[in-house]
Amino acid sequence: MACDLCDGPGGVVLWRDERLRVVRVADPDYPAFLRVVWNAHVKEMTDLSADESEYFMRAVFATEGVLRNLLNPEKMNLASLGNQTPHLHWHVIPRFRDDRHFPNPVWAPAAREGDTQREIQSRTVADETLQRELAGKLGSALR
Amino acid sequence: MACDLCDGPGGVVLWRDERLRVVRVADPDYPAFLRVVWNAHVKEMTDLSADESEYFMRAVFATEGVLRNLLNPEKMNLASLGNQTPHLHWHVIPRFRDDRHFPNPVWAPAAREGDTQREIQSRTVADETLQRELAGKLGSALR
Repeated sequence: MACDLCDGPGGVVLWRDERLRVVRVADPDYPAFLRVVWNAHVKEMTDLSADESEYFMRAVFATEGVLRNLLNPEKMNLASLGNQTPHLHWHVIPRFRDDRHFPNPVWAPAAREGDTQREIQSRTVADETLQRELAGKLGSALR
Repeated sequence: MACDLCDGPGGVVLWRDERLRVVRVADPDYPAFLRVVWNAHVKEMTDLSADESEYFMRAVFATEGVLRNLLNPEKMNLASLGNQTPHLHWHVIPRFRDDRHFPNPVWAPAAREGDTQREIQSRTVADETLQRELAGKLGSALR
């Protein structure tokens, strides 16, 4: 069966090891929307071993830490859904009071017009910066 | 500041220890929608210690395991959002191909009419059964 996360990286790859990768999703409303993707095609967290799921979550939380440090969001949103792409991936989304859906989930109908270019710009982090910060944080979290 | 998850349990309490509780949410479309709630008022997973966040996730995955065993869902959805109630809680939602929002997240607009009573009934588990299964699984996962 064709799977988007087997056939491609699923976004701009910012960090990667043998088990997982961190990618930036191209979402115009959420420039710092990252995903942590398990490299192997596995459907549910409880299909992983305890060691694997713990490793995965340490990567997710390290990614959350990087985004909090860089952007100081109002709230972090974490989700593993995968109804359409049943290949484990965690959405890691920094949320802001005036973003398009706040305080609703990003999958809900928009709460307001899309952000202005100025707002989007203020929440955009260069890939090089994300790569550097993720390398530091994941490197130590996954040791 | 008033907080719904400090002022009340947040649902029917199915399991509880000093650190966290598992509750059933009263959602008419999703009778087996559970939440794992951290007892203390903490905002983000990265505000917990590494030991605490690992403990929390072991409880979330044990809860997922119980629901998978009992209901064999098409997919499990896990999410920590908290934009409206910034007190850590994990949504643990078994999803089915013909549920009201599938394959969209439950927070998206409905994909179809609500399920029939017969469908809802087929996805309803007695609280006593949930309590017994959670006690077994969480008891061993959190030892």
